[in-house]
Amino acid sequence: MALSARPVVTPPPLREFSATRAVRFGDCDPAGIVFYPRYFEMVNGVVEDWWSHLGMPWPEMIGERRVGTPVSHVDTVFLRPSRMGERLEFRLAVESIGRSSVRFRHRVLGPAGEERIRIRQRMVCVAMDSGLPIAWPTPLRSLLAAWERCAS
Amino acid sequence: MALSARPVVTPPPLREFSATRAVRFGDCDPAGIVFYPRYFEMVNGVVEDWWSHLGMPWPEMIGERRVGTPVSHVDTVFLRPSRMGERLEFRLAVESIGRSSVRFRHRVLGPAGEERIRIRQRMVCVAMDSGLPIAWPTPLRSLLAAWERCAS
Amino acid sequence: MALSARPVVTPPPLREFSATRAVRFGDCDPAGIVFYPRYFEMVNGVVEDWWSHLGMPWPEMIGERRVGTPVSHVDTVFLRPSRMGERLEFRLAVESIGRSSVRFRHRVLGPAGEERIRIRQRMVCVAMDSGLPIAWPTPLRSLLAAWERCAS
Amino acid sequence: MALSARPVVTPPPLREFSATRAVRFGDCDPAGIVFYPRYFEMVNGVVEDWWSHLGMPWPEMIGERRVGTPVSHVDTVFLRPSRMGERLEFRLAVESIGRSSVRFRHRVLGPAGEERIRIRQRMVCVAMDSGLPIAWPTPLRSLLAAWERCAS
Repeated sequence: MALSARPVVTPPPLREFSATRAVRFGDCDPAGIVFYPRYFEMVNGVVEDWWSHLGMPWPEMIGERRVGTPVSHVDTVFLRPSRMGERLEFRLAVESIGRSSVRFRHRVLGPAGEERIRIRQRMVCVAMDSGLPIAWPTPLRSLLAAWERCAS
Repeated sequence: MALSARPVVTPPPLREFSATRAVRFGDCDPAGIVFYPRYFEMVNGVVEDWWSHLGMPWPEMIGERRVGTPVSHVDTVFLRPSRMGERLEFRLAVESIGRSSVRFRHRVLGPAGEERIRIRQRMVCVAMDSGLPIAWPTPLRSLLAAWERCAS
Repeated sequence: MALSARPVVTPPPLREFSATRAVRFGDCDPAGIVFYPRYFEMVNGVVEDWWSHLGMPWPEMIGERRVGTPVSHVDTVFLRPSRMGERLEFRLAVESIGRSSVRFRHRVLGPAGEERIRIRQRMVCVAMDSGLPIAWPTPLRSLLAAWERCAS
Repeated sequence: MALSARPVVTPPPLREFSATRAVRFGDCDPAGIVFYPRYFEMVNGVVEDWWSHLGMPWPEMIGERRVGTPVSHVDTVFLRPSRMGERLEFRLAVESIGRSSVRFRHRVLGPAGEERIRIRQRMVCVAMDSGLPIAWPTPLRSLLAAWERCAS
């Protein structure tokens, strides 16, 4: 949790899942730029879309399998502001998969492809009923592993 | 921006500004816990309250002086979930003041005083009209310095 | 559901529950005024506070008794805008109590006591597990009736 | 502003603009259904999309022409709840155009085409700098009139 100088490293070439989001009037603040908590709502929706893309939509994961994935750590650098009417591209990559967690790297790109935001995020697999961490159930682990295989 | 293991260090004894917030139904998700973007809305309100406490309410800072303080970095560790009906205590401390930035440490405590969330956040002073960073204007710098003096 | 001309009638003298809310930076839009969905978040919190005041906090109602009160109708007139930094007063009154519903009148007042918003809202008592309307369970009905008695 | 019994009338055949929205995890509350203020965020985004479709995106309307369209009245009937993962269809129709206002009818449909929500909404044309209502500027009025012509 080091609050270091802005990282200048080139992001490594990981497989990326892409989704776009329009910045709307209601996402913006009196300064005319996106109010930063709205980005986390958008990112959460992108993670949700990615799970659907893997074949495990959250209504099934949460509602039927009773497994949730709360965030345990999120570290975000805002490089440039975004404005109403812009279309942003969200790129999700999996950095690593643990016994009961997954680490994401998110990049948010502006209309010209320039980087606006960098996020590193860790989510934990928990049993909904106890709220306690559990090892990824086999069907979920298989989907995560299949994504990772294609990435290499 | 290192996504390291959970920090175990004791937070240093900085002067803290305290504010409480009730967790409401509308802050919580289908898992029954606070949807994490809502914490950032709460934290932003606490920073807003702190500036008022310093003597520089945001309507004056933003509306009249045309200075804003967007977030450039926020790093957050979620230690324990929070639930509807709980009262959380938010404790803001200033870690350092730069030429055109300020670094905060936030701690969110549960009803028994246990730590729920740790946040380190950097905000930048910008001219509203250009969106570019500027050195803290003297009246703002004086207020920040007065806070720091009392802290030591 | 008539979208009529602005009503000019004086509100009848009902017993009112009062709560205040600060308008925050994050509640406001690029026009500098409250983004109207945020008012509904605030009003929902006021209804939540009122139930606590009655003696039935929502964690008990929803979590233990498995009863919820979704909104079935809400009709809102926005008379004047509100801005960052203002303190608003929310006044809730019960207009009527049905077999499985309750009708509220809300008024939102500005710092000088002037009316900013008028809301009429109907909420329905439902069993959380079926999602279907049910008659108010006796303990809830008693609390509602006690409020009404004091009002007359 | 009559809080009447649920209307049973068939909606008249007005020209409709259609947009879809996914219900996300973060839109839902501890009861597992959409927290109703989120619907108003969605509806506001649909109105925003409709203005873009007319040829007047809000960054141009608000940022360059300095004209805004705050809501003065919104009347909403919630017929059925919506859940995480569902795709909703939003249908916007213009009921009438005034000197400085426009009245919308919105219908929100579930995946099987069934009606979930009915909204009647009035928005007012205001000068951003004064906050006061003004007659629709000619370019906006022309776009509104063109939409209405096609509707008949």
